[in-house]
Amino acid sequence: MQRTDHAEEPERSSGRLGVLIPGLGSVATTFAAGLDLIRRGETDPVGSLTQLGVIRDAAGEKARRIKDIVPLSSVGDIVVGGWDVVADDGYEAARAAGVLSEAHLESARECLRAIEPMAAVFDPRYVSRLEGSHVKSYTSLREAAELVREDIREFKRVNGLDRVVMISCASTEAYAQPRKAHHGLEDFERALEESDPAISPAMIYAYAAIREGVPYANGAPSLAVEIPALLQLAAELGVPVAGKDFKTGQTLIKTILAPGIRARALGLEGWFSTNLLGNRDGMVLEDPESHKSKEVSKLSALESILDPGLYPELYESMSHTVDINYYPPRGDAKEGWDNADLTGWLGYPMQIKINLLARDSILAAPLVLDLALLLDLARRSGMGGVQDWLSFYFKSPMTPEGLHPEHDLFRQLHRLEQELVAISEVS
Amino acid sequence: MQRTDHAEEPERSSGRLGVLIPGLGSVATTFAAGLDLIRRGETDPVGSLTQLGVIRDAAGEKARRIKDIVPLSSVGDIVVGGWDVVADDGYEAARAAGVLSEAHLESARECLRAIEPMAAVFDPRYVSRLEGSHVKSYTSLREAAELVREDIREFKRVNGLDRVVMISCASTEAYAQPRKAHHGLEDFERALEESDPAISPAMIYAYAAIREGVPYANGAPSLAVEIPALLQLAAELGVPVAGKDFKTGQTLIKTILAPGIRARALGLEGWFSTNLLGNRDGMVLEDPESHKSKEVSKLSALESILDPGLYPELYESMSHTVDINYYPPRGDAKEGWDNADLTGWLGYPMQIKINLLARDSILAAPLVLDLALLLDLARRSGMGGVQDWLSFYFKSPMTPEGLHPEHDLFRQLHRLEQELVAISEVS
Amino acid sequence: MQRTDHAEEPERSSGRLGVLIPGLGSVATTFAAGLDLIRRGETDPVGSLTQLGVIRDAAGEKARRIKDIVPLSSVGDIVVGGWDVVADDGYEAARAAGVLSEAHLESARECLRAIEPMAAVFDPRYVSRLEGSHVKSYTSLREAAELVREDIREFKRVNGLDRVVMISCASTEAYAQPRKAHHGLEDFERALEESDPAISPAMIYAYAAIREGVPYANGAPSLAVEIPALLQLAAELGVPVAGKDFKTGQTLIKTILAPGIRARALGLEGWFSTNLLGNRDGMVLEDPESHKSKEVSKLSALESILDPGLYPELYESMSHTVDINYYPPRGDAKEGWDNADLTGWLGYPMQIKINLLARDSILAAPLVLDLALLLDLARRSGMGGVQDWLSFYFKSPMTPEGLHPEHDLFRQLHRLEQELVAISEVS
Amino acid sequence: MQRTDHAEEPERSSGRLGVLIPGLGSVATTFAAGLDLIRRGETDPVGSLTQLGVIRDAAGEKARRIKDIVPLSSVGDIVVGGWDVVADDGYEAARAAGVLSEAHLESARECLRAIEPMAAVFDPRYVSRLEGSHVKSYTSLREAAELVREDIREFKRVNGLDRVVMISCASTEAYAQPRKAHHGLEDFERALEESDPAISPAMIYAYAAIREGVPYANGAPSLAVEIPALLQLAAELGVPVAGKDFKTGQTLIKTILAPGIRARALGLEGWFSTNLLGNRDGMVLEDPESHKSKEVSKLSALESILDPGLYPELYESMSHTVDINYYPPRGDAKEGWDNADLTGWLGYPMQIKINLLARDSILAAPLVLDLALLLDLARRSGMGGVQDWLSFYFKSPMTPEGLHPEHDLFRQLHRLEQELVAISEVS
Repeated sequence: MQRTDHAEEPERSSGRLGVLIPGLGSVATTFAAGLDLIRRGETDPVGSLTQLGVIRDAAGEKARRIKDIVPLSSVGDIVVGGWDVVADDGYEAARAAGVLSEAHLESARECLRAIEPMAAVFDPRYVSRLEGSHVKSYTSLREAAELVREDIREFKRVNGLDRVVMISCASTEAYAQPRKAHHGLEDFERALEESDPAISPAMIYAYAAIREGVPYANGAPSLAVEIPALLQLAAELGVPVAGKDFKTGQTLIKTILAPGIRARALGLEGWFSTNLLGNRDGMVLEDPESHKSKEVSKLSALESILDPGLYPELYESMSHTVDINYYPPRGDAKEGWDNADLTGWLGYPMQIKINLLARDSILAAPLVLDLALLLDLARRSGMGGVQDWLSFYFKSPMTPEGLHPEHDLFRQLHRLEQELVAISEVS
Repeated sequence: MQRTDHAEEPERSSGRLGVLIPGLGSVATTFAAGLDLIRRGETDPVGSLTQLGVIRDAAGEKARRIKDIVPLSSVGDIVVGGWDVVADDGYEAARAAGVLSEAHLESARECLRAIEPMAAVFDPRYVSRLEGSHVKSYTSLREAAELVREDIREFKRVNGLDRVVMISCASTEAYAQPRKAHHGLEDFERALEESDPAISPAMIYAYAAIREGVPYANGAPSLAVEIPALLQLAAELGVPVAGKDFKTGQTLIKTILAPGIRARALGLEGWFSTNLLGNRDGMVLEDPESHKSKEVSKLSALESILDPGLYPELYESMSHTVDINYYPPRGDAKEGWDNADLTGWLGYPMQIKINLLARDSILAAPLVLDLALLLDLARRSGMGGVQDWLSFYFKSPMTPEGLHPEHDLFRQLHRLEQELVAISEVS
Repeated sequence: MQRTDHAEEPERSSGRLGVLIPGLGSVATTFAAGLDLIRRGETDPVGSLTQLGVIRDAAGEKARRIKDIVPLSSVGDIVVGGWDVVADDGYEAARAAGVLSEAHLESARECLRAIEPMAAVFDPRYVSRLEGSHVKSYTSLREAAELVREDIREFKRVNGLDRVVMISCASTEAYAQPRKAHHGLEDFERALEESDPAISPAMIYAYAAIREGVPYANGAPSLAVEIPALLQLAAELGVPVAGKDFKTGQTLIKTILAPGIRARALGLEGWFSTNLLGNRDGMVLEDPESHKSKEVSKLSALESILDPGLYPELYESMSHTVDINYYPPRGDAKEGWDNADLTGWLGYPMQIKINLLARDSILAAPLVLDLALLLDLARRSGMGGVQDWLSFYFKSPMTPEGLHPEHDLFRQLHRLEQELVAISEVS
Repeated sequence: MQRTDHAEEPERSSGRLGVLIPGLGSVATTFAAGLDLIRRGETDPVGSLTQLGVIRDAAGEKARRIKDIVPLSSVGDIVVGGWDVVADDGYEAARAAGVLSEAHLESARECLRAIEPMAAVFDPRYVSRLEGSHVKSYTSLREAAELVREDIREFKRVNGLDRVVMISCASTEAYAQPRKAHHGLEDFERALEESDPAISPAMIYAYAAIREGVPYANGAPSLAVEIPALLQLAAELGVPVAGKDFKTGQTLIKTILAPGIRARALGLEGWFSTNLLGNRDGMVLEDPESHKSKEVSKLSALESILDPGLYPELYESMSHTVDINYYPPRGDAKEGWDNADLTGWLGYPMQIKINLLARDSILAAPLVLDLALLLDLARRSGMGGVQDWLSFYFKSPMTPEGLHPEHDLFRQLHRLEQELVAISEVS
């Protein structure tokens, strides 16, 4: 990956920034509650690289906080809104999600109460395990897209916002293959008009965002902005887009460990991963089609990092299995168990086993913050189209056509830092 | 860390390279047997970065094997020798070590039989759990050092070697504090003369190597070359030295994971590590003094990587415990169990637990190969003194005075690669 | 469960005992090699309760080895034979299985070479992942059964055996529901005549054994002897039968732990189990139908032990998942990872996680020995039909009609010991 | 072990039962809060065998709750009190302990507030890591004992109690060897008079209880009632006593698993256990002397269950290590990691690793309830002296002189059930 040298001097970050979220569930409400407590100084923004991260200079001697070298919006200037298939306000949704403690829920109550979801675009063919009770009516998908665009404009107007970004935290949709309707912008808009079932709700939100000039990131593994039609539109309109699938748990750990294994030229015979999920996300993934979207997203990282083409002696005969299980006792916490079969000198086998007791929304919430701030920075710096320097945040990083995605967390970080330094240098 | 720009064009790597090893035990015999099988094409050099590692160019597009860009000695040109407190030849020592399979032992039998240890410098005060039955007689430590120097010259002559390096694989010595005898070269040589108990066997080997112009690396945590007297001598004579304590198991994994945790700005409340060792190494570490040397070596990595000074919100109140246990059923295999207590958004706790079923000698043997080849390269490139670009291989990396050691495996790798590229550019 | 008081004084155990095994694969060859080494005093019969187990008297003061209180056949008197779909002799099969070390293979070579499998009854509808190259030809399933009966008689004659038992170690067959053909003996024999596809190879072996008066145990989860037709036949002919599915790995551990959890009146919210299998067994279980047979067999134990009917406050809302994965790097070793979510006082959650690094054939082989000896003892003691006192050895214990199976390992052991004491008292 | 046949028909269980607890810390307050919530029907008595346990009749067909077959006191009739070195009331102590959720603390607030600790007998030589700010003044240890006896009588009077039991939940004292002062009652009383430092606070509480006719159990590993002097006194006065060291976490799991390993005649090469404790208990155990008391208590179970005398082939060369670590991030939760190295058929190695995420006080609280009820039952049934049928509850079960302790959880349970049945038969 190469440093993007086209950043312009970013526009000022003053004014209020709207963060619009399709899917006001556990991640979105945890994000919103955290913002509120951070603003009031009751907690630190743990997990947010933009707030706590440090960049060292080339000599490794001086270190500065990221937020001190690029002009990011302030946490205090963010306004959260969004859409959901359930009409619950943010407080009710947060309580149902079961992520936050009683004390945190009460402390952020007022702020959460103020988040009233707009009615969602919903299609049961794409998320068969959910029932939508708070959904838009429309006669064509084109009309659905128009309604979302109106929502964006109205949200901006009512809240007196200067800029808006959209970060999708919706449930995983059924696995979708690229189709004719996704190819060119004309194909896509005709398909909207004809309510072609190849167009998913996730694509409609992405389309609406781009049409409104709103930067867009996809936190779920669903096929959305990375279809050719929308990438073309984003490039043409100069709107930054990024995705997909927040890198939060097991895949995060794999993209940390695998570069270390490769660094030491250790071999790998196999890697087995199993996941226990107990929340709405887990239930949705019980549907075989949604499951497939997630599985495909999770499988690619290892092959990409270990690159059997470059290291045939070490990785060419690797077994890789990723298993996802809905296990209700786990609740919003999630658990991973991994076993990697390594080989060393003379081919002797060794094993490493990792048990991760994580929390989905707690890991995802700061990514919403970082992506909102960095996409907004990109927009102000004149950077449109796919932002592959944000690969750091995703399980399935999008790249400009013809380039391979980078999965190695440390190379992703290096790339992110290089880009921030480049932006800082033109600021 | 900065790239060292002083490398000269390396001298040609032709001719035979001797690798002299104090401590011809499990690591050394596993190394030697592997070399033999690699030469005969029966196995790949798994675990060796110099043989299988790849460097990508700045654009990340082209990739070349390390051994294709710098002029390293060939595996076929290496001759192994050394010293041990037991007179067993390499085959008997390998069999006693219990690392290699019957098939590997027989396949490498001839090569192992040819390794006859020279009598060792031994001091029971430094390794109380071993008995030395094959040790040198001398009337002063100066004489001991002279005997080792003669051994080096004789080994070179008998084997028709062009160059020699020394890689210490000796047992961990008792913890030693810096003393007067270690300060200046004169102090040190007077202490040798007076057989000062502050001079350990490890220091005598290091001294002899440097005096003979032989590059030296310390694979154990014992205090050896990093005393001021020997560092001064190495710098003056232009002999490359490196250390200490091979980074092979649990610490390797920690220095992979910790940079990933920091990259994501996740907090850490505590890290508990326990180790099961069943071999001679484990038995030696039962002695509280040797134990202390190891523990000190293992504790520093985390503090250094997570840097509570730069990240006070995340790491300033971290608990860190490292436990080492002698557990005979484990044999030469070694096992680690780690628990790290992470915090995320809003301070919520998460845990990661790692169970590592590793093999000490299998992980260490390729490091002997890499260090031998890279120190020899450094010598031919005119690079003397502390080689901190080799930090990648050590639990307690040595650095030139005034610099902080780098523990982050990925920064260490980056530095190593930068140095190799610099050498390749002057070649 | 109650002690069976009907045991007669057992006939003498003198003479040679044949053990005929459908499926001469990894378990059978490991069993045979072990017998050979035990006979020659090179190893102890680890894992065999009949050889090493001890029974304490009621007062808990005196303890005697089981083999000293009941008249079991001697290990030295056993002759092993069987059938397989592959023509490899025992040595080749053992080598292919990859269970035994080179040293053990060579030591038992002669004994293994002597085991030449007879051609198997094979039906690809029941084991779709295997190819049968060494199979019987017949025009009806009745003829197939006759051929097996002839094999038994011939094996007995050729080897000069006094008695024979059959222990099935065949691959898991596709899941089969009870059908009309299984109801009465007449139905079954008509179905044999008509080559009804409801009759599986496992049933044919069981039928042949019983018809020959040969005690039969089923080590796989396939539906075999527990169909009404064969149970009726076994009862009528006074032939002891037992099954099914050797309790060797994860289920063994669960039936140890679950009684302990219940003993302490701790609650259970959920239990998640995943398994990694790398051998032929694992490959066969990749077929969804064979998988189902295994899964059904593995799921029942927990529900039975924890009995939500008796303990509604503790176990009525438990989640239970068992996952089985084919993972080739594991080879004949097998690995389980379990997570149990416990609750304690005031409902607070706790977790226990178990990682089992086991070896399938190593755990199963001594069960073949014990079952052969105990079924032979039962036969000599006049005990026909279902031997539920052997539940100790099975994942899915068979019981006489109307009784619930006992899964609790300690109650199973207690029952086994009571029965042995009862037999010893009439001896 | 044999059934005790000497139980008399128990006296009626009517009236109020006092439970006096030396050490009103996390266990005692968790116990008290739980009682309160159980009485009000807000929770079930999870973890309590007396409340939820079931006994099956000999035929295994009928099952009845324990509390329905023996006349136990009712949970509603219990009054809790005790002593502590800190003057905090039960609510403050529970809050400091960090075991209970905010919701549980508030729900049980009134009940906890009512528990005001009496001043403790304290000796810093025995618990060096604690500071006692709420301690009795006395001029001799005899006076200290008298003060405790007065406290007992006063507590009984003020609360209108019919009967009292004492369950010690105090911190672990320094390891103490049996001394002269412990031998006979006269020695002991003379030592009290002389304030002999061989007399620990734990012994004083036990002495006071027995002298008052109050049944006593010791939940800590400290040397208390099992000294000859106190055992003699308990026997003479017919006061039931039991101990020691609640079996709650890792040892509980070991005494479940080890009987299962032995049942299957599997070998054991080694067992390594490590523990993370973060509460006051853990801090106290940092003191090497307290640590030793705990370690000795934890080591005996395995040797006793696996009995290398009876099973020399399987267990005679077993390594066993138990490690205890103070790790503050764990708080009142406690974590164990165990590795057991098993051997099977032909000596092949296997491993089982157990990670237990437990909660100390949550596991111990129901044991306080059970022991209080069962000791009171014993008292009413005329059973004095050591109650070895309560071994089920202890890490280091006390037995009458000359008998071996039973550690196998399932034999312990069997013994407990037999005794309850015997009592029920005379009721």
